Amino acid sequence: MARQIAIGVDIGGTKIAAATVDIEGRMLSSLKIDTPGGTSDDVVTAIGDIVKRLNESALNTGEVVGIGLGVAGTINWKEGLVVQSPNLPFSNIRLRSIVESKFGLSTFMDNDGNLATLGEKYYGAARGARNIIGLTLGTGIGAGIIFDGCLYRGATGSAAEIGHMVIQATGPQCTCGSYGCFEEMAAGRALLRLAKEKVKQNRESLILELAGGDAKNITGPMVTEAGQMGDKTALDVFGEIGFWLGIGINNVINIFNPELVVIGGGMGDAGELILSPSRKVIDERTLHPNKDVAEVVLADLGNQAGVLGAAALVFDELST
Amino acid sequence: MARQIAIGVDIGGTKIAAATVDIEGRMLSSLKIDTPGGTSDDVVTAIGDIVKRLNESALNTGEVVGIGLGVAGTINWKEGLVVQSPNLPFSNIRLRSIVESKFGLSTFMDNDGNLATLGEKYYGAARGARNIIGLTLGTGIGAGIIFDGCLYRGATGSAAEIGHMVIQATGPQCTCGSYGCFEEMAAGRALLRLAKEKVKQNRESLILELAGGDAKNITGPMVTEAGQMGDKTALDVFGEIGFWLGIGINNVINIFNPELVVIGGGMGDAGELILSPSRKVIDERTLHPNKDVAEVVLADLGNQAGVLGAAALVFDELST
Repeated sequence: MARQIAIGVDIGGTKIAAATVDIEGRMLSSLKIDTPGGTSDDVVTAIGDIVKRLNESALNTGEVVGIGLGVAGTINWKEGLVVQSPNLPFSNIRLRSIVESKFGLSTFMDNDGNLATLGEKYYGAARGARNIIGLTLGTGIGAGIIFDGCLYRGATGSAAEIGHMVIQATGPQCTCGSYGCFEEMAAGRALLRLAKEKVKQNRESLILELAGGDAKNITGPMVTEAGQMGDKTALDVFGEIGFWLGIGINNVINIFNPELVVIGGGMGDAGELILSPSRKVIDERTLHPNKDVAEVVLADLGNQAGVLGAAALVFDELST
Repeated sequence: MARQIAIGVDIGGTKIAAATVDIEGRMLSSLKIDTPGGTSDDVVTAIGDIVKRLNESALNTGEVVGIGLGVAGTINWKEGLVVQSPNLPFSNIRLRSIVESKFGLSTFMDNDGNLATLGEKYYGAARGARNIIGLTLGTGIGAGIIFDGCLYRGATGSAAEIGHMVIQATGPQCTCGSYGCFEEMAAGRALLRLAKEKVKQNRESLILELAGGDAKNITGPMVTEAGQMGDKTALDVFGEIGFWLGIGINNVINIFNPELVVIGGGMGDAGELILSPSRKVIDERTLHPNKDVAEVVLADLGNQAGVLGAAALVFDELST
């Protein structure tokens, strides 16, 4: 039997990354292009091109069994619809059937948070676990919920909006319109807000030095670098953000009683700088026996989570 | 074929209620006794007695296919263990096998929050729905999660501690040790705390009159009664509690994308007094498309939810 191969495509506002992946998670070939500006047709054409090239490259290595599409945004899973996407010109686009009809290959689509979590279950830090919450800490928080081994999508495929779980109802306004959402307290926007605030009082902070003396230039990686070098202001920032991350993780452990909470995304690079204060909150607040069985770990797949997750979706769907 | 009957037992700190129930949810006979004080053995003996009497009463009406036990507390579902119960002298008791071996009948056990939700799915307000969150508002908040038609129990059977989801991290301390938990903000303890506080400034409130002029005597039903008669202080209390209830419901709708959120328990009696301010929060804060498909409704089964849910558990388990 020919080796089974899936084409995983991770469609973001900046880049479209794709790869041919075998069932063991080995990437056979990969491509990355800039997401074209312009209309949804332009983006669809670019997706078609990249899939075509990978499909051709796979001819000699195995049988392509399907295509997995990962999109940041609201997906209607049942209908294969991108309802809306914050960084792509998609609004109620039937992307799944467009790609499926173009290539005559079984095509599946889900949002990036679900797929990053599925990728970790198949090929990363969550192998073997059955009840998993995946949190991708970037500008906001993407999330995926795996119950008894299966992705949980809810009534219309838009479950797992854990980033918009309110953890401080009187907190700052979130981009969604609500206040004190998990992602507004514990992810990239909060990190930058807090770092900019704190360097005002601490002009000698290494964060400000890394930003060339101008708080406006501060980025997440600068705060992480300063923290890793022991800068007190950066450690304070991570202490506070880690507290709020801990509150959110406390909630998912109490609600889901998972074996595993997997923390990925750019802010995951801060590792124990952010996780250590989170663990303290969990230790102090979370219920027994839930906290005794829930491990909080860092994701394994880094920025390949999207592509590998999209490929995992193909194998996952075809196996059930 | 003889009519199939389940014996449902609802084991609370004050009462043990039980009934024989057919698969359509008809109660054929029922019993209720005071929960004996004393040791766990005394309670187990009382449970044995009530099951024995119902089992005998069922002889002429059908075939008893199993026993369902509902216990308020932390249940290890896989092992049939009551880990702990706040109002019963149970600590790591293998209640399921004790009852099963005594009667030689298939026996199942779960916590009251899960069973109230399962009862509503089989016989109440959630019939036909596949993705349901049940919230039982009493002194605290019990909860159950039904996904794709099945109770979700998590890694060790202690999922659905939605009452201990933090919604205001800087809020008042909860009985669990954490701060600002959903149940500490939006259930019975919050209602009484707030009512007692507000009548200090509003001595003419009907709440205080119903309490015989002494704030210490205020009960939840008094606040509901005053609210139903239009008392402004009571309406203020429900406005504030309903706000926090709305925050918690917002969270479960964003996280679970359910078709239905079912609100039961004693505080459910306040109906729209409490739900109307909640709906306003959901309208303002919850994400599309989740809020468009999620109905928030009152539970149907009242104080029979426990017994009917325990019986439903038997039919549910035997059918899978």
